[in-house]
Amino acid sequence: MTETDIERDVDEAQTAALELAKLSDAERSGALHEIADAIEARTDEILAENEKDVEEGERLLAEGEYTQALVDRLKLSESKIESIAAMVRSVAGQDDPLGKTLSARELDEDLELYKVAVPIGVVGTVFESRPDALVQIAALALRSGNAVILKGGSEALHSNRILFEIIEAAAASADADIPDGWAQHVEAREDVDALLEMDDAIDLLMPRGSSEFVSYIQDNTSIPVLGHTEGICHVYVDDAADLSMAEDIAYDAKVQYPAVCNAVETLLVHDDIAAAFLPAIADRYETADVEIRGDERTREIVDVEAATDADWDTEYGDLIVSIRVVDSLETAIDHVTTHGSKHTESIVTEDEERASTFMRSLDSASVFHNASTRFADGYRFGLGAEVGISTGKIHARGPVGLEGLTTYRYHLEGDGQLVATYAGEDAKPFTHEEIDGEWSPGRLSDE
Amino acid sequence: MTETDIERDVDEAQTAALELAKLSDAERSGALHEIADAIEARTDEILAENEKDVEEGERLLAEGEYTQALVDRLKLSESKIESIAAMVRSVAGQDDPLGKTLSARELDEDLELYKVAVPIGVVGTVFESRPDALVQIAALALRSGNAVILKGGSEALHSNRILFEIIEAAAASADADIPDGWAQHVEAREDVDALLEMDDAIDLLMPRGSSEFVSYIQDNTSIPVLGHTEGICHVYVDDAADLSMAEDIAYDAKVQYPAVCNAVETLLVHDDIAAAFLPAIADRYETADVEIRGDERTREIVDVEAATDADWDTEYGDLIVSIRVVDSLETAIDHVTTHGSKHTESIVTEDEERASTFMRSLDSASVFHNASTRFADGYRFGLGAEVGISTGKIHARGPVGLEGLTTYRYHLEGDGQLVATYAGEDAKPFTHEEIDGEWSPGRLSDE
Repeated sequence: MTETDIERDVDEAQTAALELAKLSDAERSGALHEIADAIEARTDEILAENEKDVEEGERLLAEGEYTQALVDRLKLSESKIESIAAMVRSVAGQDDPLGKTLSARELDEDLELYKVAVPIGVVGTVFESRPDALVQIAALALRSGNAVILKGGSEALHSNRILFEIIEAAAASADADIPDGWAQHVEAREDVDALLEMDDAIDLLMPRGSSEFVSYIQDNTSIPVLGHTEGICHVYVDDAADLSMAEDIAYDAKVQYPAVCNAVETLLVHDDIAAAFLPAIADRYETADVEIRGDERTREIVDVEAATDADWDTEYGDLIVSIRVVDSLETAIDHVTTHGSKHTESIVTEDEERASTFMRSLDSASVFHNASTRFADGYRFGLGAEVGISTGKIHARGPVGLEGLTTYRYHLEGDGQLVATYAGEDAKPFTHEEIDGEWSPGRLSDE
Repeated sequence: MTETDIERDVDEAQTAALELAKLSDAERSGALHEIADAIEARTDEILAENEKDVEEGERLLAEGEYTQALVDRLKLSESKIESIAAMVRSVAGQDDPLGKTLSARELDEDLELYKVAVPIGVVGTVFESRPDALVQIAALALRSGNAVILKGGSEALHSNRILFEIIEAAAASADADIPDGWAQHVEAREDVDALLEMDDAIDLLMPRGSSEFVSYIQDNTSIPVLGHTEGICHVYVDDAADLSMAEDIAYDAKVQYPAVCNAVETLLVHDDIAAAFLPAIADRYETADVEIRGDERTREIVDVEAATDADWDTEYGDLIVSIRVVDSLETAIDHVTTHGSKHTESIVTEDEERASTFMRSLDSASVFHNASTRFADGYRFGLGAEVGISTGKIHARGPVGLEGLTTYRYHLEGDGQLVATYAGEDAKPFTHEEIDGEWSPGRLSDE
């Protein structure tokens, strides 16, 4: 069987991953600074290639196949390229996610176990057609010592090609042994399906894009997938809420940026404060042209459109909000459990007991007390750059930073210990004590 | 569409999972003590049901369809039941894996983010026909607050039924609000395929059994799978090794328990010490009837069978070992990278530099220095009971303890903060400082 191009690319990435894992913090971050410098130095080339994508996008826009928003997202400028370079430098400046001893335990005298943070290996990524996405993902992969397969949107192909070429050349010229093939640029859509089959070589897939696309990936591979499907987020306004705070939070959660996954879809409002709260929030939403869809009890108080059953299960991504009046905290929790997507929910209340019940009863990645749902974001959470948001519960949950691109390895340092000593009738007992300190192979003899 | 039995079972488990997550440490461990007591109290019933499985096993053994080893594994005794009860009490005695604040960060004044350990939710398990497996898995699930779907081998059906009934009744009668349906016993093989489709309801699958079976599960579901495929483990005897230590480790790693995944398959022996080491280890292996298969250079020194190419890729699970003489540490690393299964490898050397190179160059879950590969085990690692061993790299790697049955949730405590305050031209900066302390909803007002 002859190897296809994509198989050869992934093979190279696998070999490179083993070398990458051995590089020092300084080598990896140094290479990122080279990349940032090269991106700035070659701004004109990037703009020229990007212009080709934008022209094609405008042609398709004229034919009604593209939206203006898509063309706007494609378009680079000098200042955008500067901020891309700044983003790469910020990734370089993050704390090293590798090599840390996560925990250490003495199993017996001179037999010490260390759990050490290491890269995952080969990460396959498929992402949307913003040209900065390729740079961001490549930078995060290199910072965390992972080889990466990059498949961007075809709309950004010329931009992605030149950016990839610059990244590859800059990493190779850096004063570090960055192995060839650590990043692979995949252009053909049919190669995505080939990637999904390579469960022996690819350790993790991180698709970004529509829920449908992420679900397609999950359904068609046995490789672990870290991805984001839906964000149906709730704000519950308790009867013990500070209503002015609740109004501000409900407004911010919807209006501050309605297109994103952590914007609120549904307000659940306690019956006892509904008559006081609803007119105020309805007026406030009106100033921002938010369309309100309410259940019957909401519509008894404010004059809004009727919500249908479908509303409770819909991610709007737009200036639309649904409102339901509930009798109790428990009804609110049931509503979120039934209709939510386990993304982000917030309770507004001055009652700590109820806040605790709400937060402990929900199976969402992020549960907030007296804060806007819009805080659910890697940058705001202080994770540094964000690889993506996970709606799964395995490995990494919610906003995922560099740590999500790592796993661990167990290092055991002994001086000849045998399991036979610790088994059978006269088994020596283990000490099993947590210890401090970082793994190094000379650790035992230094003591 | 009418709901099938298995769909109803999994639905119940999903509802129960939300209740389980809210139980206290004392409630969960108390229920486990009830279960342990009930198992001991109902020993006669368990033995009577187990006898039915054993009789059927012996009938199939006589027909040549079963092995004696399988029948032996099936068979319970009073002392085995005592040790099952002791195991349940030991799980009860483990530190609570839930509720811990894993990290905490101030985002801004009075805006604090806590990463809190929580159960995964609903865990689907399919396991081998040892009757103690059902009890062990149910106990670990309850300790970690997870609802669990239990599918055991049909050979142990009568034993599993009575054990499940005892567990269910004891948990229900405990002084704790253990929700009905937290554990579900699935008996039909065809239900396994139904489980694989339930990606909306089951959060994690943990199959135990043959590599083929685990691979089948991985290939036929989009639910995340934590499982163990192959264990092709290596011991590299460096030219700077203490040869007497190397001999002991090579012997222990093969002979102490050859049927298990962390037993060594292949010794890689540095050329410079091969003439001194090989005759000694060959003699030692002969005392335990270990069959040696050597490469050409090995066979120039000791009189053993010839290894074929297939030997380097075979998990023996038996008293067979393959030996290859290598010129360098690098060749040994290449061999492990090419033929290993990323499970467990050990280097025997007095040279710390080479130990470090070996450990940092390999992509295995466990890499040891001067210790037997047989230490790669949850109990020996001090993880408490072992849920299983993972050969994947995502979520949990190597021996998996209770921690592997947990994930986390982000709790954000604010006093009305809005994202609009931290965005745009006059954006307030985040403070993003790591803080100490455990999450509680009253934390901000207590300060």
